Amino acid sequence: MAFLKKDLPKRSENLSDWYNKVVLMAELADYGPAKGTMIYRPYGFAIWELIQKEMDAIIKEKGVSNAYFPLFIPESLLKKEETHIKGFSPELAVVTIGGGEELKEKLIVRPTSETIMYDAYSRWIHSWRDLPLMINQWNNAVRWEKRTYMFLRTTEFLWQEGHTVHSTHEEAWNMVVWAMDMYKKVYRELFALPGYVGRKSRAETFAGADTSISYESLMPGGKALQSCTSHDLGQNFSKAFEITFQNKEGKNEYAWQTSWGLSTRSIGGMIMAHGDDGGLRLPPRLAPIQVIILPIKAEAALIDTAEKIKAELKKHGVRVQIDASENESIGFRINTWELKGVPLRLEIGTKELAEEKVTAVRRDTGEKIAVPLNELKTTISTLLDAIQANLLAQAEQFLKDNTHTANSYDELKQIMATSRGFISALWCEQEACEKKIKEETKASTRCMPLDSKEENGACVGCGNPTEHRWMFGQSY
Amino acid sequence: MAFLKKDLPKRSENLSDWYNKVVLMAELADYGPAKGTMIYRPYGFAIWELIQKEMDAIIKEKGVSNAYFPLFIPESLLKKEETHIKGFSPELAVVTIGGGEELKEKLIVRPTSETIMYDAYSRWIHSWRDLPLMINQWNNAVRWEKRTYMFLRTTEFLWQEGHTVHSTHEEAWNMVVWAMDMYKKVYRELFALPGYVGRKSRAETFAGADTSISYESLMPGGKALQSCTSHDLGQNFSKAFEITFQNKEGKNEYAWQTSWGLSTRSIGGMIMAHGDDGGLRLPPRLAPIQVIILPIKAEAALIDTAEKIKAELKKHGVRVQIDASENESIGFRINTWELKGVPLRLEIGTKELAEEKVTAVRRDTGEKIAVPLNELKTTISTLLDAIQANLLAQAEQFLKDNTHTANSYDELKQIMATSRGFISALWCEQEACEKKIKEETKASTRCMPLDSKEENGACVGCGNPTEHRWMFGQSY
Repeated sequence: MAFLKKDLPKRSENLSDWYNKVVLMAELADYGPAKGTMIYRPYGFAIWELIQKEMDAIIKEKGVSNAYFPLFIPESLLKKEETHIKGFSPELAVVTIGGGEELKEKLIVRPTSETIMYDAYSRWIHSWRDLPLMINQWNNAVRWEKRTYMFLRTTEFLWQEGHTVHSTHEEAWNMVVWAMDMYKKVYRELFALPGYVGRKSRAETFAGADTSISYESLMPGGKALQSCTSHDLGQNFSKAFEITFQNKEGKNEYAWQTSWGLSTRSIGGMIMAHGDDGGLRLPPRLAPIQVIILPIKAEAALIDTAEKIKAELKKHGVRVQIDASENESIGFRINTWELKGVPLRLEIGTKELAEEKVTAVRRDTGEKIAVPLNELKTTISTLLDAIQANLLAQAEQFLKDNTHTANSYDELKQIMATSRGFISALWCEQEACEKKIKEETKASTRCMPLDSKEENGACVGCGNPTEHRWMFGQSY
Repeated sequence: MAFLKKDLPKRSENLSDWYNKVVLMAELADYGPAKGTMIYRPYGFAIWELIQKEMDAIIKEKGVSNAYFPLFIPESLLKKEETHIKGFSPELAVVTIGGGEELKEKLIVRPTSETIMYDAYSRWIHSWRDLPLMINQWNNAVRWEKRTYMFLRTTEFLWQEGHTVHSTHEEAWNMVVWAMDMYKKVYRELFALPGYVGRKSRAETFAGADTSISYESLMPGGKALQSCTSHDLGQNFSKAFEITFQNKEGKNEYAWQTSWGLSTRSIGGMIMAHGDDGGLRLPPRLAPIQVIILPIKAEAALIDTAEKIKAELKKHGVRVQIDASENESIGFRINTWELKGVPLRLEIGTKELAEEKVTAVRRDTGEKIAVPLNELKTTISTLLDAIQANLLAQAEQFLKDNTHTANSYDELKQIMATSRGFISALWCEQEACEKKIKEETKASTRCMPLDSKEENGACVGCGNPTEHRWMFGQSY
């Protein structure tokens, strides 16, 4: 890895250029050879592993089991739910040759697993005693993209997809909300990314769902990122796949279903939201390396102290590494680890060693703190917590500063032409109106916040009567 | 789940019929809708998760990082190493349509990731400082199969594949051996499956490798199962993909590479090796449920005690569940958990409760042990260890009893016609001879044990001079 800081475009000047470069330079990812594909390099994949570890524990605690369903879905199966196949057909990758022969039936590389899972569910579920059936999988999925926007838009992505079956709609809806609550917790506490939770408009609802709810976060430049979704599938799939159960009264009923997913796209949002002109700023809870120790020079006493500090911090669960590369200057090494977004840097020089201190430098603020060696453990832990909290606070301030209210179409246009961000406005919930607003202003409906109160008024786009206030924004 | 024990064929009478049924009845897996595919159900997938957790820690401890490379390999890339594509081309699944359009270049669904990884490695490696590069991935891979033999032969399987690059052949070879040592440890300590480690013959070497070593274990009926492999790739791929590095003297050299993998096939071997007429017998270290608590009747006092025991065992890291289903008799419940192979069953009846005891029943031996409640923690832990050790001891005895020596072709034929098993015999290492033996006796070369001493003599098949003694056996 040899790069110069000057090779990194300024985030403040050209966001997408900065993004593409920082992902490569920080060695988070690389382009794959097929169009639209990406390689998750160890540093980037380690972030996903941290997300998986935390979420997997929450999912299991809820009583959801992990399983693994096949990658290949026979075309006929994918076609069983009409809206579903309509939604996904433009994005499919299709296997037509297997074992050297043209296949009689094409196989679709899973874009999502509703159909292949529910085909099995229909065989497994017979009685109310088999419910709820709650399964999650961590896997890869494929939705065709011509251009790669690493993490954010790729032909293949990694995710978890939860798929549950319930005996009542109420229980299913509680699951939809439970999943979104989990995502919200994970986004806030791990990613340090606040957002709005709400119901998607009809046009933006998942293909095959009755209702979709999403977490919408805000990117620099004022664009909104749909960060994950949770779907109330109603009985749409249970009717298409004949998922019925005998209820306690001995009568057959169609089951109620949910599905919910969070993908590696979330990492893209985090990179974009927290980075700065110096590179990444990773929240400590998702940083593969939380503390980097830099001996100023390659001297035995400094390296020895570095090793001791590393051992002590490691013992207390801190993810820590030393960079004592002899062939790279201290300035170069500082730039490298700043670029890679390591939350805390510990510099050890001869003078500091004499005073039994190290200098801790915060990646989020640049602040330098002299830390006595005998207070290291507590101070590092406190500082990591402070950095995590500060990144969230900064993102919350940014979200607050960029959430606007538009009382007229002119106001909405005005906001979209300047700062963008989230725009709260009354909307009639008609698809034609939604389409017009998007074409004219680039703002689409992001969601109707779940706590949105009934509000009768005039639609911001067409003046027709409204029931609720919605969030608009330009989507990524 | 409703089945009767009588539905399970006897393992001793029809092994493959028993195997197919027990996998379904124990809810380890199910058939997928596309030919050759399978569904890993929660109970089966939980075994894989336990394997992953243990192996992932060992792999990381060695300094190997996890990453994720794309599923789709452009055909031209897969063709770069000649032997490699020759070996894999009959087994490929090919994507020809993407995003609604015929693709200009076909995409191969990865059968293994050498080519796609090494294409990136050639961009990432420049200097000796970049070496060793050691990456592992846990993913899915596809090799076409017309018939499904669950876990053992499936079109799609799950595995880990490690891919390392070194500056010397010696270092690479040490890695090949390190990986096999890890597998051996995992097979013996987790799977309770002993086996032979050795070099594969030329014909059985991985397509593109100089040398492959494998772990060969023994299945009931005397067939051998290749349980995992570790490959010395030499410079074959580094030359095809131009993976060069500048050495300390400033000269460019081709790098030395290894790859090694263990798949969900390993679970199939474990099911087959340890099961009995009653169903699975899972080794405690890989059992998703190590202890099942069965209150004899659905009485409050019994269920209450069951809950207390569960809480205590759980606190000490035991994977434990209660089955207090009111609608199923105790006999039915016992059969169920025997079939599912849970290592230890705790029965709680009114009489036992009065005596402050429970009855522990070992799945491996059927032995019943009265355990005072106040000794539960220690006794359970001791019993689980004893079961794990006993399964290994039984498998070792079986391997020993079924390892033969053949001093002539007639002896080899005789053994293959009766007990099968592993046959140690002198062999000339000529492909034609190997082929003839296989055709005439079904025995193929399994491996040349790594500690095999030089032994000059006459080949068991053709009488030509030999250098080593090899292991023969009928492969699964």
